[in-house]
Formats: sequence, C-alpha cells, structure tokens
Amino acid sequence: MSKNIFFEQKGPFLLSKIFNDNNLKKLKIFDIKVLEEATNTDLTFFDSLNYIHPAKSTKASYCLTTDKLKVYLPKNCEPILVKNVLFELCKVTRIFYPTADIDTPDLSLKKPSKSKYSQVRFGENVFIGKQCKIGKNTIIGSNSIIEHNVVIGENCTIGSHVVVKNSIIENNVVIQDGCKIGLKGFGFIPIKEKNLRFPHIGKVLLKENVELGANCTIDRGSIGDTVIGKNSFLDNQVHVAHNLKIGKNCMIAGQVGFAGSSIVGDNVSIGGQAGISGHLKIGNNVKIGGGSGVVKNIPDGTVVMGYPAVPLKEFIRNSKK
Amino acid sequence: MSKNIFFEQKGPFLLSKIFNDNNLKKLKIFDIKVLEEATNTDLTFFDSLNYIHPAKSTKASYCLTTDKLKVYLPKNCEPILVKNVLFELCKVTRIFYPTADIDTPDLSLKKPSKSKYSQVRFGENVFIGKQCKIGKNTIIGSNSIIEHNVVIGENCTIGSHVVVKNSIIENNVVIQDGCKIGLKGFGFIPIKEKNLRFPHIGKVLLKENVELGANCTIDRGSIGDTVIGKNSFLDNQVHVAHNLKIGKNCMIAGQVGFAGSSIVGDNVSIGGQAGISGHLKIGNNVKIGGGSGVVKNIPDGTVVMGYPAVPLKEFIRNSKK
Amino acid sequence: MSKNIFFEQKGPFLLSKIFNDNNLKKLKIFDIKVLEEATNTDLTFFDSLNYIHPAKSTKASYCLTTDKLKVYLPKNCEPILVKNVLFELCKVTRIFYPTADIDTPDLSLKKPSKSKYSQVRFGENVFIGKQCKIGKNTIIGSNSIIEHNVVIGENCTIGSHVVVKNSIIENNVVIQDGCKIGLKGFGFIPIKEKNLRFPHIGKVLLKENVELGANCTIDRGSIGDTVIGKNSFLDNQVHVAHNLKIGKNCMIAGQVGFAGSSIVGDNVSIGGQAGISGHLKIGNNVKIGGGSGVVKNIPDGTVVMGYPAVPLKEFIRNSKK
Repeated sequence: MSKNIFFEQKGPFLLSKIFNDNNLKKLKIFDIKVLEEATNTDLTFFDSLNYIHPAKSTKASYCLTTDKLKVYLPKNCEPILVKNVLFELCKVTRIFYPTADIDTPDLSLKKPSKSKYSQVRFGENVFIGKQCKIGKNTIIGSNSIIEHNVVIGENCTIGSHVVVKNSIIENNVVIQDGCKIGLKGFGFIPIKEKNLRFPHIGKVLLKENVELGANCTIDRGSIGDTVIGKNSFLDNQVHVAHNLKIGKNCMIAGQVGFAGSSIVGDNVSIGGQAGISGHLKIGNNVKIGGGSGVVKNIPDGTVVMGYPAVPLKEFIRNSKK
Repeated sequence: MSKNIFFEQKGPFLLSKIFNDNNLKKLKIFDIKVLEEATNTDLTFFDSLNYIHPAKSTKASYCLTTDKLKVYLPKNCEPILVKNVLFELCKVTRIFYPTADIDTPDLSLKKPSKSKYSQVRFGENVFIGKQCKIGKNTIIGSNSIIEHNVVIGENCTIGSHVVVKNSIIENNVVIQDGCKIGLKGFGFIPIKEKNLRFPHIGKVLLKENVELGANCTIDRGSIGDTVIGKNSFLDNQVHVAHNLKIGKNCMIAGQVGFAGSSIVGDNVSIGGQAGISGHLKIGNNVKIGGGSGVVKNIPDGTVVMGYPAVPLKEFIRNSKK
Repeated sequence: MSKNIFFEQKGPFLLSKIFNDNNLKKLKIFDIKVLEEATNTDLTFFDSLNYIHPAKSTKASYCLTTDKLKVYLPKNCEPILVKNVLFELCKVTRIFYPTADIDTPDLSLKKPSKSKYSQVRFGENVFIGKQCKIGKNTIIGSNSIIEHNVVIGENCTIGSHVVVKNSIIENNVVIQDGCKIGLKGFGFIPIKEKNLRFPHIGKVLLKENVELGANCTIDRGSIGDTVIGKNSFLDNQVHVAHNLKIGKNCMIAGQVGFAGSSIVGDNVSIGGQAGISGHLKIGNNVKIGGGSGVVKNIPDGTVVMGYPAVPLKEFIRNSKK
C-alpha cells in the first residue's frame, strides 16, 4: 500500500467512522482516489456524466455519488449517496490529508549537499528539500527552490527563480525562469466569510522532453495528477490548472490558459492567449487558433477558432457577415 | 494628521505656492486625497461624471476640476479650474510625494530579527524592511521580500518568491508563490520622449481570508487604495490594476485582468481570462463568463458573457445566428 | 569582425562544408544574419514574401531560400535553394552556435564587486555574471540576476526577482519585479518525440526610458534582435516574443501578448489582453482596443478593435447587429 509521498496522510479509517454512519460496513479505507486509479481499499467519487466510462470499470469498493449517477457503477462498488459530491469529497479528503489544502512553504530546505548531488550543477542560492532525487547532468539556476520529495530526471535544465513542489519530472525537461510548478489549484467550496479549501493531494508529472516557457504556472492535481506529455512545449506565461492531462508533441503558445480537468490529445497546437474551459476532451491533432475560447469537446483532427471556438470554415464565414 | 506610512511626504504647502497663484487663499494643504477621503486640509480632484456621488459630499476645501464639473461640488469645496485634471494632479502630487513615481527597491532589507519575529516562521533567505509588522503563526516562504512598513496579520501563508510592498494584509490571507503586490500601477501622462509618471501614493489592502494564486500582480492605488475584500479568492496570473476595489466572497479565475479604478461588488464570479475595463461598476452577485470583455457597468445579479460582454441569453442568441 | 558577445560562436566555416556540397564556392562564412544586417561574409535567409523589401537590398553573398523566392534577391547574393528554409537555417545555425538553443543558467554569477560597481546600488543577494557593464546611479533590487555580458545604462531602476540575460539596456529604463528578459523564444522545428530547438542568437534591446511592468517576459531574438523603442511603457504580465520590434512612445497595457517577428510603429497604444499575431506590421499612431485579436497588418493612424480586430466603426456596427 503506497503512501502519498508528498503529503501527510492519515488513516486508514473505518468507513463507518468517516461518515459517522454505523450502517456502513466496517471496511478500512486507505486512500481517496479517482475512479480509474482506486483499488478495493480506496474510496472514489463520481459526480458527472463526463466520467461514465471510468465509473463503469472502477475497482473501488465505495463511491461518493448521487442517486442519479449510481446506476453506472459496477457491482463491486457500493454507492454512498450524497447531494453534493464535491462538498462531501472535500470533507472526507480533509480527514485523510489535513495539510494538503494550503501550500505551506517547505521549511526543510537546505543548500544542496555536494556529496548527494555530485553530478548536478547548481547556480547560486539554490535550496532543496528533504528526500529529493535529481538525475545526473541536470542544471538548476540561481534562487530556485526544489521542495521535499520532488524527483527530477537526467539532463534537465531548470532556470532561475523556479519553484518545484509535489512533482515528478522526467529526463531532458527544460523549465525556464520564473515557473511555479506543483502548487495547489483553484479548488474550494464557496462558503460565505470563509471558503472551504479542497485538499490537493495529486502531483505534477512532466514527461520526457517537455519544455515550459518563463513564468508558467502548472498546478498539481486535486485528486489525481496534472500531466504534460512527452515532447510537449509550452511558451511563456501559460496557466495549467489542476488535473489537466496534455498529450504528446503538443505546442502551446504564450498566455494560453487551461481550466481544470480537461484532457488534451497528442499533436495538438494551440495559439497564443486561447482559453480552454474545464472538463473538456480535446482530440488528437487538433489545432486551436490564437485567442479562441474553447467551451465544447473537439473531435480529432479539427481546426477551430473563435469565441466560442467553432470549426475554422464557420469562423471565417461568420467573420465575413 | 497621519502621514503616509509608505512614502516620503513633503508639506504642508500653501495653496498659493502649489499653483503659483497669489489669488488663491493662503490655506495650508497637507495632503492629496480622493473625494471621499479628503478632509478640509486636503486637496482633492474630480475629473469624471462617474464620481458625482462622492463629489457632492466631499469634505475637501479645494478640488482640481473642470468648468463643466464644478457645479457638482458642495459649498465647502472651492474648485480650482484646469483643462486637464489628471495632468495638474500629477504635477501637484509630485510636489507632495517626490519619490512615489518609481518603485525604488527597498535597500533597508535585512534577514528577519529572531527576537522581533519570534512567532513567525520564515523560509531561507527571506528579507524584511524596516518597521514591518507580522502577526503570529504567519509563515513566509523562501526568497520572499517584505518591504518597509508592510503590515501582515496572523495565520497568513505567504509563498516563495513573493514581493510585498506598500500593503496591509489582514489575518488568514494566503499568497502563493511569485506574486508581486503593492507595486506602482500603469499611470502616467504620455509625453513624447519622456512620459511623466503619476505618483502612486496609495496602498494595497488585502482583507481577511483573501487568497491569491501564483504569479499574480496587484498594483497599489495611485491616490486611494487597491482593496480585495474578505474571503475573495484569485487564481493564478491575475492582474489587478491600481485603485481596484473587489468586494467580498468573489471568485476570480486564472489570467483575469482588471484595468484600473473599477468597483466590483460582493459574491462576483469571473471566469478565466476575462478582462474588465477601467472605471466600471460591477454589481453584487454578478457572474462574468470566461474570456469575456466587460466594457460597461453591470447591474446586480446579472450573468454576462462575450466580447463585448452582454447578458447570457443575448450571447447565446448571437452565437446561434 | 565582431563576434556575438552573448553566445559561444564557432567558425568561420567553408560554405561547401556547412552544406556538405562541393559545388558551393569555398567561401568562408563567419555568421548567420537577417537580410538587412548581413555582410558579404554572412549567410542570410529569406522565407516569406513579407521580407521582399530587405531581400532586394541584402548585402549577403549567400541566402537560404526557395525556388519561388530566389528572383527577389540582388545579383550579389547567390541563393541556396532548399524546401524548408527554417529547418535548414536551424541546422546551420546550430553549427555556428551549438549552445544557444537552451538557456543554460549562467554559473559564472557572483555577488557584485564593490570596486567594479562602486556607483551602482544593489539590494540583497543580487548576482552578476562576468563581463557585465552597469551605469552609474542604477539600482538593482534584491534576488535579481544579471547574467554575463549584459549591459545596463545609467539611472536605471531594476526591481526584485528580475532576470536579465543577453540584453542591452539603455539609460533611465525601469524594470519592475519579476520580469524575465532575454530568454530564448518559442522557436523550434516540431519533430515527433524530440523537437529540434532553434538557436536564439539575438538579444533584447531596451531603449532609453523604457518601462516594463511586473512579471513581463521579453524573449530575445532568434536571429536578429527584440527591440523596445524609446519611452515605450509596458504594463504588468505582458509577453513579448522573439524578434518583436516595438517603436517609440508606445503604451502597452496589462497581459497583452505579442507573437514573434511583428513590427509595431511609434505612438501605438494597445489595450489590456489584446493579442498580436506574428509577422505583422502595425503602423504608427495605431490604437488597438483591449481584448482585440490582431491578425492582419494595420495601417498608420487606424483605430481597431475586436476578434479578429477590425476598424472601430465596423466593430461598433457589428456589435449592434
């Protein structure tokens, strides 16, 4: 049973205790996971028709969901019916992960040990947390901060004024100056006077050959991870929200913004300042014009533009009216 | 008579000297203030019909204004008629505040004194200016800079690579990595070869429970303050220009930009990458769709979207044409 | 023959060797330059009808171009015909400049020498590379990094958390906190699994009296320079891509984004969040409304708005439909 390496994790807890309901079985729950990653000792959640597919094959024993959605769950998975899935999920996740709702700065930082990191080159004033791993021939620029348990591969180039936390970075990744990677996303239950923050217990995963331009922000996943696929390049000032999955060989131009939880295919190119709404599926080989506002799923191979984004021919026709 | 705590302030000056006009009374002027904050020893200014309401009840004795607007001033307030209010205001403000037009980096910074800040936790390499106050249980991440006279409340979490200057921050505020808070705004009189910078003598006020995402920029007020209300949350890379007032319980998504001097009500939600023009009034309980461009006032409770932003029904109707 | 001061430069090489083609003359090539800057010992390139004018008067002896474009070259300039000009240019440039494709952090940084920089004021923890020049009365804020060979003029104010590399900055320039200046741009040949990065051998040139707001990113030129003209002011979070030329007295509001290689005239004002596509020519005295998406050249004196941007009257007419 692997523990979360980045966050303090409590438990296991009895299901009956978590929900304060003795009718629930005395099953021990070890973790909270998304539908596709949950095992039979995890609690999962299912809150939208967007996720029918993973719901049908989840291996979780229990699932927070609604009366309307419960029919899609497999036999092995018992629904725990609630009105507001995300609100209940937030409360439960806070029991397991009491400190993942705010990014408390890592106070274990130290100048890098020359013996531990003998094959890594560092600029001035770099600080590294406990239990990090950094591969050979990687270089990290001045004033950058690598927080505890971060893993960085070989031959990476990380610029100056970068912060990396709660992240796993593969080989040959380039991160330019000023990027902030692995911070908690913009997730909370709005409550007057004092919002309830959603714990962010996921991580950021940057695959081989990824490049990030200057001053990008890549938030970690809330539950599940934020992933940028192999050989995808992002330009300056791109904002990637929690849980986003970007495929391979994508080209994302400057100041593009992604809301949370969308899935972007392979070989996708996105022009500058385009915005992609949350919970969408952008197919493979899609081209999105600069400045577009994408609010719907886009099928493979489509070229779209506009606000809201429509197929290119339609956009040109509308512009000529 | 409280002096500005953040900027070197000259004066008082005789009104006749300031304007080099012996016809003006030999009244001592102590400060420059906005219409609603001016007392009878301050000079104020009134340059737009947007501000009729505070103009009518100002307590200032003198007001820079135009021939057209002077009729709205109360009897206690004598108009000083000029052609270009902002140009004259800029010149006068520079007399009182000769160093507030450029953000000269604070050279009084030191590593935090352990005795003074015994109840505050600091990361590595934090620098603090003179006369700061930081409340107990606050934590400040590595490489962050708190410039002179800044006040930070209790239980705040301030990330790494943050700069805070000219600001007052209340309790339980969260500021993520890379934010730049309290810098001068984008205000100047355009002059060929060498623009004349407007002094920015206001501050930033972040109320209780505010949260700012990574790499946000919150400019201080020019005259008057920039305020973010209680329990309002901003996502990453949001740009807040000078003098903006944001109400309580607002949710502002990533990469939203605000031009200067607008007033945003309570419980307002704004989608990613939306832009709000300057000098607008956005009502309470307004929802603004992602990517919208708001160029007009919005009444309470309205849902708007589009560029330019229109009520949602209209936007949907237009998109279907 | 002046060498590039910022990048390791190999050569000269025989043309026949560079292209592995013995039919080519045994001419020594010293550098790669854009059409208007090349001398008779440089190789240049010509890949688009946008550049007919400089092509016709280039002084280069050899030019990478296509069969279609070769007719525009003058007699002194012999075409080297290829299918994909930028791909071949990329490969050749990598021969001359083997390390300019990735921004390896400068490891020559040191605390500033008091004797060398006796007339410069520094905040805490500033790091300076080798061979920099910084003029008198300039001030540089805490945690900022000035990499090797950068030249900064007199009376400049550079904030905190700034990175400057591969740049020449004239007198009286103001750079606010968090700017990243002189980094490589978003230029590469897309190749599945491993893109081929374009070397960026140009620099950033900030002319007298320029001001940059907080957290801006100004990429250096790929071949040729990125230039911001005298007395032009940029607000916060502006993104300027490689090779952009901005004229004098421009006002660029917050979060504006420029794609690469456009030319912006003098006295241009651009509203917040506008986006300007690449390879465009924006005339003098142009006004571009906030949020606009500019995809075509704009003649002198025009006011445009919209997405795509059109003359203001047309935009208003369309909005009323």
